[in-house]
Amino acid sequence: MMITSVQNPKFKQAFRLFKRKERDMHQRFLIEGYRELLRAHEGGWEVETLYYCPDLFLGTNEFLLIKNIQKKGASTFEMCKKVFTRLSYRDRPDGLIGIGKYTFRSLNQLLRKGVSPFLVVTEAIEKPGNLGTIFRSADAAGATGVIVCDKCTDPYNPNVVRASVGTLFTVPLAEAGGSETLDWLQAHKIPLIATTPGADLEYFDTDLTGPIAIAVGTEQLGLTDKWLTRADKKVKIPMSGRADSLNVATATTLLLYEVVRQRR
Amino acid sequence: MMITSVQNPKFKQAFRLFKRKERDMHQRFLIEGYRELLRAHEGGWEVETLYYCPDLFLGTNEFLLIKNIQKKGASTFEMCKKVFTRLSYRDRPDGLIGIGKYTFRSLNQLLRKGVSPFLVVTEAIEKPGNLGTIFRSADAAGATGVIVCDKCTDPYNPNVVRASVGTLFTVPLAEAGGSETLDWLQAHKIPLIATTPGADLEYFDTDLTGPIAIAVGTEQLGLTDKWLTRADKKVKIPMSGRADSLNVATATTLLLYEVVRQRR
Repeated sequence: MMITSVQNPKFKQAFRLFKRKERDMHQRFLIEGYRELLRAHEGGWEVETLYYCPDLFLGTNEFLLIKNIQKKGASTFEMCKKVFTRLSYRDRPDGLIGIGKYTFRSLNQLLRKGVSPFLVVTEAIEKPGNLGTIFRSADAAGATGVIVCDKCTDPYNPNVVRASVGTLFTVPLAEAGGSETLDWLQAHKIPLIATTPGADLEYFDTDLTGPIAIAVGTEQLGLTDKWLTRADKKVKIPMSGRADSLNVATATTLLLYEVVRQRR
Repeated sequence: MMITSVQNPKFKQAFRLFKRKERDMHQRFLIEGYRELLRAHEGGWEVETLYYCPDLFLGTNEFLLIKNIQKKGASTFEMCKKVFTRLSYRDRPDGLIGIGKYTFRSLNQLLRKGVSPFLVVTEAIEKPGNLGTIFRSADAAGATGVIVCDKCTDPYNPNVVRASVGTLFTVPLAEAGGSETLDWLQAHKIPLIATTPGADLEYFDTDLTGPIAIAVGTEQLGLTDKWLTRADKKVKIPMSGRADSLNVATATTLLLYEVVRQRR
């Protein structure tokens, strides 16, 4: 039974998840794209419903992925091209959109036995694209987790999923309040490095080889005082030009890869 | 004489510059925002026309900037809030939009006597946000120029101006063909470092202290063979996660700051 109308309740159920209020109410969100769904599936995220449109498939592995996601209990529905395109968030849809369940990890679940913590803490990032890019870089640098504090953009925004190219599902994610996170880091003796233009120390000049949590703040204002006061070290990125700051995702990546460089 | 209608020819003249075809035909583009216009003005770019709406000003320096831009010969026009907002590309317009003239630099104009070349070469970047972020990082790292090759996104796209936070006007920019650029780099003995996942060498492990041009390719496919074949060195960024690449602007920034680190 193919879905061929935007009046179909299954379509409506998915479409409303573009709104954050609806996502939060139903604890469900959209995962679009083969690569993204593959990473969600492999990362153990529950994909509850899967819509597909073979006319739009770009490769030949889509049916295998659908089968594997079905095996885990997902309901699957074929959609006609017109309706699928309406549900898609992309310029070039690839024929797969799933509905995933919110998955919560506690801060403690970010710790892995025998693995030195290498965490990113984001305070109130505004733009979904930036949060997504931070996940992508955290994945690439081998970070052990991302803590989203005092969220502004929710990590389940379709643009986060897209900008993360699915790494939202491969890097352990926890959401927590700022004070809770600060207390938890302190209790677990994980040094907090705050990135701020007001620091004296350049990020190259500090030892980043041990357990570490790197904190970055909002696009406009950076980290709030609460974070700066309780940081173990404050570091800056040297700025040689006219602008006074870097894009927040870019700045985060520089810190992450300085950890990679020093730990080799 | 305040502009109060979208039928006003001055409004129409500006509005059509959202289209690339119109920009290229008239060799003019839009520069929105106080910070962006300040940097354009300070960077010596010609701002030909300036539209302003005092009701939207966020600070108190706007009138001084308008005066300084007027002094250089710009025509200025006040716009009512409704019409200005229609012309604005932003969620929160700040009351200033200018029309700038395309400015072309030859490759040779990127060279400065006594300054070691530190160039970024982009091949066919697709997303304006990425190109803008590359400018922002090039400015921050003290790069001496950006060469936009075989352009896909034109650097005068409003999203490039915005994502660059005006650093499009502070970092010397040249546009050139790929082969022309390769020949020019060779003739000037500027070693070309190509960033590609297929390299053996990690970017930390190569000497980046001399004259240098860092080349990065499209979001989807990376650098084309032409660049890889003629590169003096190929380097990769180590990837520890599930994803196989970083965002292109992020990757570029890592290279730029490795140069900064090594040159200190």
